[in-house]
Amino acid sequence: MVKYVYSFLEGNKDMKDLLGGKGANLAEMTSLGLPVPPGFTITTDACKEYLKRGEVPETLTTEVTQALRDVEREIGRRLGDPDKPLLVSVRSGAKFSMPGMMETVLNIGLNDESVQGLARMAGNDRFAWDSYRRLIQMFGKTVMDVDGDLFANALDQMKADRGTTQDTDLTADDLKELTETFKVIYRDATGEDFPQDPREQMDKATEAVFRSWNTERAAIYRRRERIPNNLGTAVNICTMVFGNMGEESGTGVAFTRDPSTGKSGVYGDFLMNAQGEDVVAGIRNTLALADLERINKPVYDELLGIMRTLETHYQDLCDIEYTIEEGKLWMLQTRVGKRTAAAAFRVATQLVDEKLITSDQAVERVTGEQLTQLMFPQFDTDSTKTLLTKGMAASPGAAVGGIAFNNEQAEAAKAQGRPCILVRRETNPDDLAGMVVAEGVLTARGGKTSHAAVVARGMGKTCVCGAEALEIDLEAGTLTVGGKVLKEGDTIAIDGSTGEVFDGDVPVSDSPVTTYLLKGLEAGLAACNGDEDMTELVTSVDRILTYCDKSAKLRVRANADNPTDAQRAVDFGASGIGLCRTEHMFLGARRPLVERAILSEAGSQERVEALAELGKLQRQDFKEMLQVLDGKPMTVRLIDPPLHEFLPDLTSLEVKVALQHERGEHNADDEKMLAAVRKLHEANPMLGLRGVRLGVWMPGLFAMQMHALVGAAAELKAAGGDPRPEIMVPLVGSNAELAIIRREAEEIIAEELEAAGVELDVPVGCMVELPRAAMIAESLAEEADFFSYGTNDLTQTTWGFSRDDCEGVFFPHYIEAGIFGVSPFESLDVHGVGRIVEEGVRRGRSAKPDMKMGVCGEHGGDPDSIHFFASVGIDYVSCSPFRVPVARLEVGRVEALAKLGELAQNGGSK
Amino acid sequence: MVKYVYSFLEGNKDMKDLLGGKGANLAEMTSLGLPVPPGFTITTDACKEYLKRGEVPETLTTEVTQALRDVEREIGRRLGDPDKPLLVSVRSGAKFSMPGMMETVLNIGLNDESVQGLARMAGNDRFAWDSYRRLIQMFGKTVMDVDGDLFANALDQMKADRGTTQDTDLTADDLKELTETFKVIYRDATGEDFPQDPREQMDKATEAVFRSWNTERAAIYRRRERIPNNLGTAVNICTMVFGNMGEESGTGVAFTRDPSTGKSGVYGDFLMNAQGEDVVAGIRNTLALADLERINKPVYDELLGIMRTLETHYQDLCDIEYTIEEGKLWMLQTRVGKRTAAAAFRVATQLVDEKLITSDQAVERVTGEQLTQLMFPQFDTDSTKTLLTKGMAASPGAAVGGIAFNNEQAEAAKAQGRPCILVRRETNPDDLAGMVVAEGVLTARGGKTSHAAVVARGMGKTCVCGAEALEIDLEAGTLTVGGKVLKEGDTIAIDGSTGEVFDGDVPVSDSPVTTYLLKGLEAGLAACNGDEDMTELVTSVDRILTYCDKSAKLRVRANADNPTDAQRAVDFGASGIGLCRTEHMFLGARRPLVERAILSEAGSQERVEALAELGKLQRQDFKEMLQVLDGKPMTVRLIDPPLHEFLPDLTSLEVKVALQHERGEHNADDEKMLAAVRKLHEANPMLGLRGVRLGVWMPGLFAMQMHALVGAAAELKAAGGDPRPEIMVPLVGSNAELAIIRREAEEIIAEELEAAGVELDVPVGCMVELPRAAMIAESLAEEADFFSYGTNDLTQTTWGFSRDDCEGVFFPHYIEAGIFGVSPFESLDVHGVGRIVEEGVRRGRSAKPDMKMGVCGEHGGDPDSIHFFASVGIDYVSCSPFRVPVARLEVGRVEALAKLGELAQNGGSK
Repeated sequence: MVKYVYSFLEGNKDMKDLLGGKGANLAEMTSLGLPVPPGFTITTDACKEYLKRGEVPETLTTEVTQALRDVEREIGRRLGDPDKPLLVSVRSGAKFSMPGMMETVLNIGLNDESVQGLARMAGNDRFAWDSYRRLIQMFGKTVMDVDGDLFANALDQMKADRGTTQDTDLTADDLKELTETFKVIYRDATGEDFPQDPREQMDKATEAVFRSWNTERAAIYRRRERIPNNLGTAVNICTMVFGNMGEESGTGVAFTRDPSTGKSGVYGDFLMNAQGEDVVAGIRNTLALADLERINKPVYDELLGIMRTLETHYQDLCDIEYTIEEGKLWMLQTRVGKRTAAAAFRVATQLVDEKLITSDQAVERVTGEQLTQLMFPQFDTDSTKTLLTKGMAASPGAAVGGIAFNNEQAEAAKAQGRPCILVRRETNPDDLAGMVVAEGVLTARGGKTSHAAVVARGMGKTCVCGAEALEIDLEAGTLTVGGKVLKEGDTIAIDGSTGEVFDGDVPVSDSPVTTYLLKGLEAGLAACNGDEDMTELVTSVDRILTYCDKSAKLRVRANADNPTDAQRAVDFGASGIGLCRTEHMFLGARRPLVERAILSEAGSQERVEALAELGKLQRQDFKEMLQVLDGKPMTVRLIDPPLHEFLPDLTSLEVKVALQHERGEHNADDEKMLAAVRKLHEANPMLGLRGVRLGVWMPGLFAMQMHALVGAAAELKAAGGDPRPEIMVPLVGSNAELAIIRREAEEIIAEELEAAGVELDVPVGCMVELPRAAMIAESLAEEADFFSYGTNDLTQTTWGFSRDDCEGVFFPHYIEAGIFGVSPFESLDVHGVGRIVEEGVRRGRSAKPDMKMGVCGEHGGDPDSIHFFASVGIDYVSCSPFRVPVARLEVGRVEALAKLGELAQNGGSK
Repeated sequence: MVKYVYSFLEGNKDMKDLLGGKGANLAEMTSLGLPVPPGFTITTDACKEYLKRGEVPETLTTEVTQALRDVEREIGRRLGDPDKPLLVSVRSGAKFSMPGMMETVLNIGLNDESVQGLARMAGNDRFAWDSYRRLIQMFGKTVMDVDGDLFANALDQMKADRGTTQDTDLTADDLKELTETFKVIYRDATGEDFPQDPREQMDKATEAVFRSWNTERAAIYRRRERIPNNLGTAVNICTMVFGNMGEESGTGVAFTRDPSTGKSGVYGDFLMNAQGEDVVAGIRNTLALADLERINKPVYDELLGIMRTLETHYQDLCDIEYTIEEGKLWMLQTRVGKRTAAAAFRVATQLVDEKLITSDQAVERVTGEQLTQLMFPQFDTDSTKTLLTKGMAASPGAAVGGIAFNNEQAEAAKAQGRPCILVRRETNPDDLAGMVVAEGVLTARGGKTSHAAVVARGMGKTCVCGAEALEIDLEAGTLTVGGKVLKEGDTIAIDGSTGEVFDGDVPVSDSPVTTYLLKGLEAGLAACNGDEDMTELVTSVDRILTYCDKSAKLRVRANADNPTDAQRAVDFGASGIGLCRTEHMFLGARRPLVERAILSEAGSQERVEALAELGKLQRQDFKEMLQVLDGKPMTVRLIDPPLHEFLPDLTSLEVKVALQHERGEHNADDEKMLAAVRKLHEANPMLGLRGVRLGVWMPGLFAMQMHALVGAAAELKAAGGDPRPEIMVPLVGSNAELAIIRREAEEIIAEELEAAGVELDVPVGCMVELPRAAMIAESLAEEADFFSYGTNDLTQTTWGFSRDDCEGVFFPHYIEAGIFGVSPFESLDVHGVGRIVEEGVRRGRSAKPDMKMGVCGEHGGDPDSIHFFASVGIDYVSCSPFRVPVARLEVGRVEALAKLGELAQNGGSK
């Protein structure tokens, strides 16, 4: 027979699946001998049964009767007893905390008779009637779906009648009258009287808690927090204790350390003669925990002893709820406490110092996302701001500057030392120059995965996008929002963590954590300006990252396409460049040259010359980057996008030329360009002539890039440098494709090295970004010195959807419908794309056991994805420079978790 | 030590890898005791060694010496002997025949001395000198790369000097003089004298044959014929026998049955006093084999006996080359003979009747491609035609009709009973109506995979595409080609097997094989009009297909979207419809309705009404098709393409509206449409909002289709029919997507069946056309009653290229470079896409062992792909109706090959 009820004397903290978090911890505290009011927990199994069958399991009723008898015996009171009534609370308690999402009913056990007994027991009429009217109100609303406003309005009316606004001004008689009013409201709404049978109250409240698991708001919350839908909630039935029974009573919440700053030492608020909700609601000014020593030293000492016991027992920061009933301390709840990112780091290192946990455990306790939060600059919290509008929070941080509507304005501002915000309807690769010099980017269109958002995140630059209220008139040079007209140079401020756009200047502070990450511990500590909390935080981050770096097996590289980004990557601790995209080097001022190379005839002198000129420029690009990377590997991906991406857009050009014709004009250049664009136009560019196909199809293109790279490296080597270039071929689908480029590469490498008279190993590898590449990896491995999994493209092809076309269109529906937990472009889809990566690793290593394999693409900087990559045997991840510290932390966590897992398997305690 | 030389006494027919086809068969004939001139074969291993090292293996020289001694002993003559010289031929002989691609040198062994001995031996000076000058010419050209024209010009000059145009008019002295001239040419070109050492001649000729493996033309041939590059060629050194030694000598080729028609009984040509090339060259009129009986009955009888021996031994039609030297018959070559498609079928059944082979062997001997060739109508060969131009042979057949430039003209012609050819610059889905009624399609643009080509092949309709010389002026209504101007209704004829376009009428005959396939044996035989060859052919096809149908395990379904195609599919023997694409039902006259559904607001009354109206039309569509299919399954794929495919093209519309603005006009409808098209525009429609995503995103769309289908089926069932609808969800990537549609489907099915008061099983399955679907197939199987592998889309996503953008662009380069043997859209890429299909089958069956799995898409009709699908456990293939007979044959061959393979494994002879 399934056991549905556990006394607090039976369970323990590891039974959260069955007893929920609250129930498991109440049982744990009970078993530690702490003063927990007697009670019992109805299991999640009972909830699941109820939700499945629509009624409670038969045996539950008898089990509850038995458990209730035990509580009554222990406490010496009976439920519904007219003289000494036992009152209980009925509270939800799921495995994962879902604050405010589910139901609670207090004061169960009161009726027209027992309210009198309570009044006598407490020697307090007002308290008893207040408790009773609260029961009717809560029960009516929660269990019977009575409109809560009906009760609230009646209370307000009563207060108005009495000429007050404070509940506390109402007398016992007032409350007795209110109780009668509430009963009428209840009967009118439900068609039946408020139940006088306390057991009926308890059973109905229990079912209401069960049902609350499936309310829409609970379901939405779970979806957002990625909590499975099928867990169900437990129900805790606990003897009521009262903090509002006079000045010897009170209630409070406390933390064993400050959950906000992480400062060590207990921390909390309490109120005497009050109930829990009074502390939380903030109606009355709470007292600091320290004040309790003065008010009731024995209770204070007991409480501090209990907190020390709990922290030692849980080996972590705990939060607790307690009540003092007429001088007696009762523990109502505890759990491992939520905390801010800063507190997470500080508490973790404190606990190591206090020898409560190991360094591995400390690393387990912090996350990459928390580190990210510590890195962004922020608006000073106490400054005044004028909100203009709100867009999407696309890339966090705080940025202030003058409006720049285009690259020229942005660069001019930069030249004059004026910070600026690039404001565009939307951005495209041509706006890169402006984005690079701007403090932040603001767009009127596009979602979290628009060009602006993706590039800004990649650069660690603040971005607000899709602020649809912005009207940008490029001709007039104005930005209009909510009637206000702004011009170039007018100062605005954008908050990339909230999506807010402010008018005028708002003070911003850099994060000392970022200063530390970029410039080392000394600089980081100096940036703290003597702030003790910040100083301890920077020290904690440093200790944890140092430990991670030491233990990590997975390497962290960065994606960078220019010397600035490469330098930032190195400063942030990247062990090399895992992806240098060469197409960005073809934009801006080089565009006319690229157009010439594309538009000229294959094999013509013009094309040869254009490519040669591009080659010279690329060689300089590579040289500068290799100098920054000196001694570290730099993987250069040969050009990937289709050629038409370097030419004007077809539709705009068609319109332009059609209008010229309409006007009787003819522009030979435009006509020629149109013909070329038409010819190169593709219905699905993502699935078109790009990557290695382009290299095979257009002789000389890859060769130009390989000459530039190897030539630059050979030159540096000859000058005594330590360049480590790697050639990476994109979009490879077959061994034969790669073999063709590899042969070409080998010839070029031999030629360039011989010309410079140096020796240098230049590995040639390929992207694995097509399902086919993974499925034939054992064959590809014959031609590749390394693989790099391009999980962005691999996600697109494995799912058959393009990020541009889909993420902003149906992904929201899919997340809403629970088809996705999170966009597969943000966190790797391990069941689909992950299996293909695994297949690639397995097959590749079957041919070449020691083959180096990396991951580039945004998943390389995503914590969950990093753990997956580690589990399948990837050697390095490559992410945007700004994500490098996050990745360094997570690759360290991989090892820490593995060691802790081993310990657990070996029977070691965690 | 590797053995490089095999005497004809040593090898056998199964040693083709080592001895090449010719060498293996010469050895086989020798071992059968047939009169083969003595000789030996140098192995392909020797060739590969030579090509690798640039020189012959050392031991080869001594082995050749030994083998040559054996030949000299046997024949009683010596190479280079001045009195009784042995002459040998040095011929290439690869595993796979590569006619005309490689080198041969005859008459090796002649020099200034032995030519005299030959003259004496043959009693014929002229013959000896003619042989010598031929040796110098062949050797010079083949071995020493002397320009062949130098020799040919000298011969012409000599004939001119003698006032003749015939070689035969030259005397022995003339030829002696010519030999001297040739020697001078040889010395001038090579800088050395023609080698007098016969062994040097032989060795150099051998190396020349080796080298000829790697000539460009040979490499191109191999690429085209998909012969591996690394096989190398063997070299056969064989005693020369002469058919030109007088009237007692002769030479001929023969077939054991007619390779052209398949008629039983020997067949061949010969010439007395001639050499092999004379027969082939057609300079002299050859005699029929029967004439040999009159000329030399003993030889004739011997030859017929040999042919019978060979056919019994090879169990197949053989072709042979023989020479009669002064009354003695010599066999120079045999092999299993190439034959036409018709001959293949007739010979196979003849051999069964003659108890030489089993029915399974007969099935093995024919192919689906051969059956296809027999199905197309053809132009009468002896009619006169006027060629207008030539395009690409896109879909075979012969079609004649009046020109129709658009759907209206085509439909008008159809209504008046006038056959027509739809002539378009290129076609798109809107042209379907015209294509359906036209006899054939002719386009000026687009390759073999353009819309016109693909659709026409799918319909079994003749198509010539990419005929670039056509100038189509739609406004003027003219087609101009080579100066000739044609108008609507002018008759043209197109040959889809050659790409030819003819002016005026050309008589066409239907194929009686197709009549048989569509209407049964009786009708097929009647269509033969007493033609005996054709009658036997139709009977053979019927016998083989009947046997295939009986033994096949794989079922054959068809892809059909309308009742006509469905009827054709059933007539052709399909066991059901595997893919009914519903989007075609949205085109033509229904477009405005579809536009209304798309452009109206989500949830609006207008959309509900538009969908309801579409639903009524679809219900009628489905009803008609289900009636045709009565008792057979019909899998309906819910709508797949993105919505914008049903709206106008963005670029054209932008231009249109821009021009309106320029002219100061405003068209509200166009503006509204433009806004909608812009909103729905996708950068990569193939990877966009389509398939199940569209179904999830736009509520009501799939529901409308499912109501229509199930409603139609329920209605037919209630009326006593046997409808078997199956619902197929396209582009599924996750279990959750499918679950959502499945729940909806189950509700609709229950509702419709209840309304009609019938019971009906309506399976709900999905396409597996994304790599992810295959990788999570065990999970998909929980929600799917069946899978259908959409190998077209699966090829696109696995390789990451779209057919439209790539097949015409870089595929030719890829095939040229050997990256592809054949387009992966034509024949399944088994190593990449195939592995993903396998993974899907394995995973799906792991969850549901008996799950039905099919393949739809063009690979379903491709023979090689069918064999692969069978090997991984697919249950049915679905192809275009016209390919159904081909597929029926191939699924039969799958079983035949399996049984023969088993036999071979069990030691049974094949």
